[in-house]
Amino acid sequence: MLADLTALLGARKVRGADPDDLAPFARDESHCGAFPPAAVVLAESRADVEATLRFASERRIPVTPCGARTGKAGGSLPIRGGIALSLERMDRIIAVEPGDGMMVVEPGVITGRVMEEAERVGLFYPPDPNSWESCTIGGNVAANAGGPRALKYGVTGDYVLGLEAVLADGEVIRTGRRTLKGVAGYDLTALLVGSEGTLAVVTEITLRLVPLPKAVRAALCIFPDATAAARAVAQVLAAGILPRTLELLDDQAIAAADSRGPFRFPLGAGAAILAETDGDDPESVMAALVRLGEIAVEAGALDVLVAQGESQRRELWATRRQVSLALKALYPRKVSEDIVVPRSKIPQAIERFKAIGREHGLQVATYGHAGDGNLHTNVLFREEEERPAVDACLEALMRETLALGGTITGEHGVGLAKRAFLPWEQGPVLIDLQRRLKATFDPLGILNPGKIFPEDR
Amino acid sequence: MLADLTALLGARKVRGADPDDLAPFARDESHCGAFPPAAVVLAESRADVEATLRFASERRIPVTPCGARTGKAGGSLPIRGGIALSLERMDRIIAVEPGDGMMVVEPGVITGRVMEEAERVGLFYPPDPNSWESCTIGGNVAANAGGPRALKYGVTGDYVLGLEAVLADGEVIRTGRRTLKGVAGYDLTALLVGSEGTLAVVTEITLRLVPLPKAVRAALCIFPDATAAARAVAQVLAAGILPRTLELLDDQAIAAADSRGPFRFPLGAGAAILAETDGDDPESVMAALVRLGEIAVEAGALDVLVAQGESQRRELWATRRQVSLALKALYPRKVSEDIVVPRSKIPQAIERFKAIGREHGLQVATYGHAGDGNLHTNVLFREEEERPAVDACLEALMRETLALGGTITGEHGVGLAKRAFLPWEQGPVLIDLQRRLKATFDPLGILNPGKIFPEDR
Repeated sequence: MLADLTALLGARKVRGADPDDLAPFARDESHCGAFPPAAVVLAESRADVEATLRFASERRIPVTPCGARTGKAGGSLPIRGGIALSLERMDRIIAVEPGDGMMVVEPGVITGRVMEEAERVGLFYPPDPNSWESCTIGGNVAANAGGPRALKYGVTGDYVLGLEAVLADGEVIRTGRRTLKGVAGYDLTALLVGSEGTLAVVTEITLRLVPLPKAVRAALCIFPDATAAARAVAQVLAAGILPRTLELLDDQAIAAADSRGPFRFPLGAGAAILAETDGDDPESVMAALVRLGEIAVEAGALDVLVAQGESQRRELWATRRQVSLALKALYPRKVSEDIVVPRSKIPQAIERFKAIGREHGLQVATYGHAGDGNLHTNVLFREEEERPAVDACLEALMRETLALGGTITGEHGVGLAKRAFLPWEQGPVLIDLQRRLKATFDPLGILNPGKIFPEDR
Repeated sequence: MLADLTALLGARKVRGADPDDLAPFARDESHCGAFPPAAVVLAESRADVEATLRFASERRIPVTPCGARTGKAGGSLPIRGGIALSLERMDRIIAVEPGDGMMVVEPGVITGRVMEEAERVGLFYPPDPNSWESCTIGGNVAANAGGPRALKYGVTGDYVLGLEAVLADGEVIRTGRRTLKGVAGYDLTALLVGSEGTLAVVTEITLRLVPLPKAVRAALCIFPDATAAARAVAQVLAAGILPRTLELLDDQAIAAADSRGPFRFPLGAGAAILAETDGDDPESVMAALVRLGEIAVEAGALDVLVAQGESQRRELWATRRQVSLALKALYPRKVSEDIVVPRSKIPQAIERFKAIGREHGLQVATYGHAGDGNLHTNVLFREEEERPAVDACLEALMRETLALGGTITGEHGVGLAKRAFLPWEQGPVLIDLQRRLKATFDPLGILNPGKIFPEDR
């Protein structure tokens, strides 16, 4: 296989002889383990993707597309071996059209570069997954990635106007459009977004950009406990204030962030909300933040720290963004979930999750996007022998999330990590329909097999 | 068939013996003609929809779902006869949950009622199709309806979190979720939105609501011609101002609106932009409108009339909203399109459309949502014998739109009216894939047959 693939694409684009070349493609940022592919294709153009998929179709070889492999759900793991199809080298920004509020990019462009290129022309690409400095826009499209700003601005899919993609048989489709509106035919763009590379391989993305807000202000509200913080979130939104972020940290998350500094949380901080308002008029952006702070105090905040200037704002965000790494330093085997509950259920969810942790002899840390109910519930552990308890705890967390009217994944995707939970959320008719849709796109089942749906019957 | 259907559902829910009962279901607001069904089912519950579809599947009877039949593309016309399945009686608001920013409704609820119910609890349902006082939310979902506010707030699909729908075989699925985020499985919600009743019959809709802006201000900017108006649109957006509407009226649209009053356009008005800004702080909303007006003047506006108070604002909107009826009074057989071009192409599009009209001996009026490039280009005529010229003119308009990088439909859908144009926009691989998706949902082809795709091969 390797020789034929090399003959087809050239040695520069194929890896496989040396296991060391394959090892990086065996893992992602999930806790799912290592699954080395038989070969890696480093596609440099759509033509490479077409050739690879035609080759794989002829031989019925599994193809697992991947970007920067920062996914948390195992979506890019080649669990059936075969070809890992990397899109990292397809990293061109094809067009930036400020007048039409649009950018056309290849899937391997780092998300942070999309943001920068937009800002360079006074526009804004809002989705901000935590890994934006290293993840690719193609991976964001595959997972329909979110981030803190989703509260006000929505998720990746809300900014995808059109896609070029290669089907499993090597045929090319162009979905969507380059205009801001359009309803011709079925919305295949939306169907491909979030499909985790199981339906087609995206080779070009047309993104919508919005005006860059001229002013942004941030504040950190300190609470005695998560219940007070969640109450503040509800009251801020009920007051008609729509901040661009309302990020929650619970006591465990605060302790972890605190342990790394430089920011020190005040004594008694049992929860915190990192809030950010934005808009075009600096005074009303500040006024909204002040009102938000007042509401936080009414809801029980111990203190509200308003960032003075951009460097303090960045410091607050660095503190929020390092929570995941800080927890990992303390608990090297933590599992981070991305469940969502209706936001009125947040206090109940946090309390129940902690109780579920205790029942299984485990610590549970919760942080994340409280404004839209998307919580990163982390089960913390250090030793592999705790794994059975962790698995049982995760199952209980998922059951509780669904009992609260929530969903098992808000932004990471189902991938491998959560495929067993999908039937808990979705009925058999719906899952069967999705399997049939998958078969319509990919009759041979070569595209990222084994993902999203429970193990094939 | 009628007797069996009546036995199944009860006489109250079935019409068909009297042709007068069928006549209203033979037409919509398109120019496609009259297609009476053999029977009408007036569903009152999901169970009625299930029973009707099981019945129709057994006998392979076409089923065409409909709401208020205000569609412009013939999507709800029962062109193959069979059953017209009306969802109008399913008009309950099932839940309003302000804390979670959500509303659950049946498909027959009038869109205006959704807006009112949201505002009653201080929330906002932004999509505002021109027919909001009479169209149903289910029809809006079927067409992924837009409206003036789409510029800032997006279209119907951006507010649909989840759906309950009945498949062609009578099985029920629940797609999406009741949370603000969620990526479990394929986005079937987005696939069903805009699918024009060809994939499933929606029986329940979970809508996302947003905070109601506290202040709204409107201004009418008068220009000598459409080129200046389009230049103003581009410059306003380039300045980072995102109004909630930027509605364009060209000279023909102005003449028609003027003929009905009460608002009188000043002499020399060759185009106008109805702009609206909104937000939480009245002063900055007004400041943005003033800045917008200044930019309009720099771009060549003759005058900027700022609405003083709510009644003047309503009067300006009444003027904009009556353009369609006013044109129809002057040209009873007008055909209204809803093409979209990249907004940088608007001046060129308006000029070319007028020239295409002249080439066919016809007047063309253009108005609509200039901010997002979605233009209602109207071909005006009075006598049926002009129809061949009109059809040729429409074809030329579509070709020109596509040559400018646009799409054949921005908010009305393809339906019957534009199915012949779809292959001009989308390649054969994409259309074939969509036909196969349709067959996956509806293997017998009973759901709204003959729509979206060119006549079945």
